Amino acid sequence: MASPGSGFWSFGSEDGSGDPENPGTARAWCQVAQKFTGGIGNKLCALLYGDAEKPAESGGSESPRATSRKAACACNQKPCSCPKADVNYAFLHATDLLPACDGERPTLAFLQDVMDILLQYVVKSFDRSTKVIDFHYPNELLQEYNWELADQPQNLEEILMHCQTTLKYAIKTGHPRYFNQLSTGLDMVGLAADWLTSTANTNMFTYEIAPVFVLLEYVTLKKMREIIGWPGGSGDGIFSPGGAISNMYAMLIARFKMFPEVKEKGMAAVPRLIAFTSEHSHFSLKKGAAALGIGTDSVILIKCDERGKMIPSDLERRILEVKQKGFVPFLVSATAGTTVYGAFDPLIAVADICKKYKIWMHVDAAWGGGLLMSRKHKWKLSGVERANSVTWNPHKMMGVPLQCSALLVREEGLMQSCNQMHASYLFQQDKHYDLSYDTGDKALQCGRHVDVFKLWLMWRAKGTTGFEAHIDKCLELAEYLYNIIKNREGYEMVFDGKPQHTNVCFWYVPPSLRFLEDNEERMSRLSKVAPVIKARMMEYGTTMVSYQPLGDKVNFFRMVISNPAATHQDIDFLIEEIERLGQDL
Amino acid sequence: MASPGSGFWSFGSEDGSGDPENPGTARAWCQVAQKFTGGIGNKLCALLYGDAEKPAESGGSESPRATSRKAACACNQKPCSCPKADVNYAFLHATDLLPACDGERPTLAFLQDVMDILLQYVVKSFDRSTKVIDFHYPNELLQEYNWELADQPQNLEEILMHCQTTLKYAIKTGHPRYFNQLSTGLDMVGLAADWLTSTANTNMFTYEIAPVFVLLEYVTLKKMREIIGWPGGSGDGIFSPGGAISNMYAMLIARFKMFPEVKEKGMAAVPRLIAFTSEHSHFSLKKGAAALGIGTDSVILIKCDERGKMIPSDLERRILEVKQKGFVPFLVSATAGTTVYGAFDPLIAVADICKKYKIWMHVDAAWGGGLLMSRKHKWKLSGVERANSVTWNPHKMMGVPLQCSALLVREEGLMQSCNQMHASYLFQQDKHYDLSYDTGDKALQCGRHVDVFKLWLMWRAKGTTGFEAHIDKCLELAEYLYNIIKNREGYEMVFDGKPQHTNVCFWYVPPSLRFLEDNEERMSRLSKVAPVIKARMMEYGTTMVSYQPLGDKVNFFRMVISNPAATHQDIDFLIEEIERLGQDL
Repeated sequence: MASPGSGFWSFGSEDGSGDPENPGTARAWCQVAQKFTGGIGNKLCALLYGDAEKPAESGGSESPRATSRKAACACNQKPCSCPKADVNYAFLHATDLLPACDGERPTLAFLQDVMDILLQYVVKSFDRSTKVIDFHYPNELLQEYNWELADQPQNLEEILMHCQTTLKYAIKTGHPRYFNQLSTGLDMVGLAADWLTSTANTNMFTYEIAPVFVLLEYVTLKKMREIIGWPGGSGDGIFSPGGAISNMYAMLIARFKMFPEVKEKGMAAVPRLIAFTSEHSHFSLKKGAAALGIGTDSVILIKCDERGKMIPSDLERRILEVKQKGFVPFLVSATAGTTVYGAFDPLIAVADICKKYKIWMHVDAAWGGGLLMSRKHKWKLSGVERANSVTWNPHKMMGVPLQCSALLVREEGLMQSCNQMHASYLFQQDKHYDLSYDTGDKALQCGRHVDVFKLWLMWRAKGTTGFEAHIDKCLELAEYLYNIIKNREGYEMVFDGKPQHTNVCFWYVPPSLRFLEDNEERMSRLSKVAPVIKARMMEYGTTMVSYQPLGDKVNFFRMVISNPAATHQDIDFLIEEIERLGQDL
Repeated sequence: MASPGSGFWSFGSEDGSGDPENPGTARAWCQVAQKFTGGIGNKLCALLYGDAEKPAESGGSESPRATSRKAACACNQKPCSCPKADVNYAFLHATDLLPACDGERPTLAFLQDVMDILLQYVVKSFDRSTKVIDFHYPNELLQEYNWELADQPQNLEEILMHCQTTLKYAIKTGHPRYFNQLSTGLDMVGLAADWLTSTANTNMFTYEIAPVFVLLEYVTLKKMREIIGWPGGSGDGIFSPGGAISNMYAMLIARFKMFPEVKEKGMAAVPRLIAFTSEHSHFSLKKGAAALGIGTDSVILIKCDERGKMIPSDLERRILEVKQKGFVPFLVSATAGTTVYGAFDPLIAVADICKKYKIWMHVDAAWGGGLLMSRKHKWKLSGVERANSVTWNPHKMMGVPLQCSALLVREEGLMQSCNQMHASYLFQQDKHYDLSYDTGDKALQCGRHVDVFKLWLMWRAKGTTGFEAHIDKCLELAEYLYNIIKNREGYEMVFDGKPQHTNVCFWYVPPSLRFLEDNEERMSRLSKVAPVIKARMMEYGTTMVSYQPLGDKVNFFRMVISNPAATHQDIDFLIEEIERLGQDL
């Protein structure tokens, strides 16, 4: 194997000698820079090396790279203030980067400077004194900056500025006080793995072009199935672009298992199929049914108890009702960790009913699946091993970067039969390796992004015990929050009892509403509290937490904790902030 | 706004002072390292700083970072050979990284070292003297390395080694001689943008958590619609996880447009629907029909001419046939750039037929859409502006990193009506900003990966003219290849005439077959040639190109050129390599 060009290794050497192969380069650039009027040269250098035009939050210090460049400055041409003007982005364009001739040096400089911008962002993301969000209304953001696409290229200086601007307005989803979604946090190993995935830039359809990633998907899915409790980790599965698609896969496979002719003949060839899921389940079940030609009317929502858990007796009643009408129950989707309440459906009871009526049992554990990693909490999913399929999103409770969602299937080969189309240009049958590793034909997608590597590398780095510790900590924080607010003045819990997941659902009742009668007017006023507090949170940028109505319950906060950066103090802060922002309402 | 901790800026300062806040750290680490027996400390230091255990290809030089560390070594404890033992990965775990207390220093060192590994890979990717692929059979790869997941964490030294190993066995999809798929090449700006996307780690469903990315999607889709030719760029669209899903969206929306009741009632409520596409079209049309409950039998494959273009008269004939049976034609999917031949269906003729029979016209321009950026080649898609929907994958011909696929829809609001489920926990109607920017409910997905930023940033960096230059160059290279082999001994073209896209389809006929009669035996022997040459290419690792049979044509090579790194010399090399590897067959 060849060694990379020596230019690579000599680039950026910080010994002060500049480019050993071409000591005149730095000087030459400086001379060019001086020809510019209007201070562009100085401005550029300052920008690149940290003296000016920093985003407001970045402080006055310099990046390691900037420091090193200054130390290595070999420029003796005044008035060029550029410490080491070997790469002048104002003169460089994308066409100067690899694979261009002599593209190695500017490429490495450019990518390293992008990296410096990203590293600054990473560090700021964890800094409690920075904002979670620098909020601007859409029209403001559209006006403040020119985002339009044009015929002509921009130089790399401008490209680097776009990177900074984009991050300036980004939500710091890794910030310790970001609680807005089920997916929060920024895992450093996961991030590194995602960068590597981008760099490898390949596609999951065949072993031919993604050998390691295909094997890692095999290993990882098997491990997940073992944890679910399927003997020897046997079965099937895929990483799909999100939980909604994983749930849709489950519905698709369940239908195919019962009526394989549907693949060729369509829904016209089969009786009316009915799916069951709880009224607290995720909307993707209905979305899937609409897409698959089943129709949303054929998704029956089963009643939940006060805690948001499916009531098995209602499930059985509705199954019988449907069968009496001559329709065919084909799928029950139980939820392990509902989106709003974090409720776990009683999987054993559901499994018994599915067995009795021979219905495919799916468990949507997109949110709750992570608890399987915890010896303390996995009992909440007891019965999951009896499911035919399971959705489990490591990008939620396990903190893997977006996206990483797995659909696990107990029966091997079913996905392949359901979805394969035998494209001969891709899945050639006369290849020289074991074709069982060309897994692409079991997917609905053709090209498929590599989502497994970040999970695999994080798993290596944390071990199962590391995920367990993270999950136990998040659950403990949720309990801490619950214990503080359950008896605190101004708070009402949406449901009683300790949360089973990290979802803590509550109303904050401002002083002005505390002594009102519990009537419609109070409800109406209470419904406006959470949206206003949330809007203020975003404008101050101090924290973010979600709210929503549910059934007859008006807008309430849904606090969820999946963020590894969150501490008890952040929970305290959230409470204080809600009170600070809401006390006048 | 706060400044990040000074630790950030002081980390890695190359002035030789070490950590100014804690000058004893380096020495302390060295002392710890010395306690290890068996040379682990030395081995680790050497590994980290570039002296040993480099992957075979990386040569003997050192990374800039390694050099700078050596220069900055402040260690005076012997026999520690560690130049600057401030970060010792063998003692560090994921739990030592941010958000851990004092996690900033190891985090920055770790991410920077990952980056150095990635930069080495990038440089090697473009080096013609490195292999495209270091091929191993699946069982070899499974045996050579332990990929299993365990309970206990691994240290960061091991994690860095996993990164190196993963890349050692990766296919260099950016290598100038990688021609295996429609998506090839590695764009530096696109890569930087994808790293940024990973770092921002957010989700496209709401403006609330992805303000800039949502706006950029809006701007970019509008621009793409303008280029398609829809007045003022009006219409709708989404970035979806790949062309297959984009095509499925088109089918879903076409069905909804004709029979909106299908969303609630399912396929049972509508007559039998029929879709039409050419026999050379992509398999995703059938896959989509199977999933959507339409059934593959209801996808009628229209005959193609010798060049792989749909024959309009056959389309009309089949539409009439279907209507006579009382079925309902609801979708024609024309292909602009077929997968194997690169053929462009006659869009104007197809549009006339769709208009006449009031059928939704979809254009699958996943592969050919890029040609719209070229003034020289866009005529091949004339009539695309009359389509109701268009699939266009910038991750193919435009070289955007995987994945980046757009589905564009002429009628605004249809996607939303078709797919929305009004999840109140996500799409709250009482938010404080313009809710039209919460675009998530028009998707089938709930969470959706940010795919737009890499395209947007590349577009800024290249301008439309940059994409045009890339596309014109690739087409020119394809013509160069065609001109060389069309009359060269030992080659037969699969179809006559200059290729319309970059697909060049040909048989290589080894000397032993050249003078055989054109009978079944010859065909049988010819069909084995391409697979063997391809297997040898992979084992030598010199180049990669795809092959497949099609209809009654036995295995032939399909050369495609989307790789920006490819030159005339690489085309010459491919021909020589095919002859070198195939002459004995």
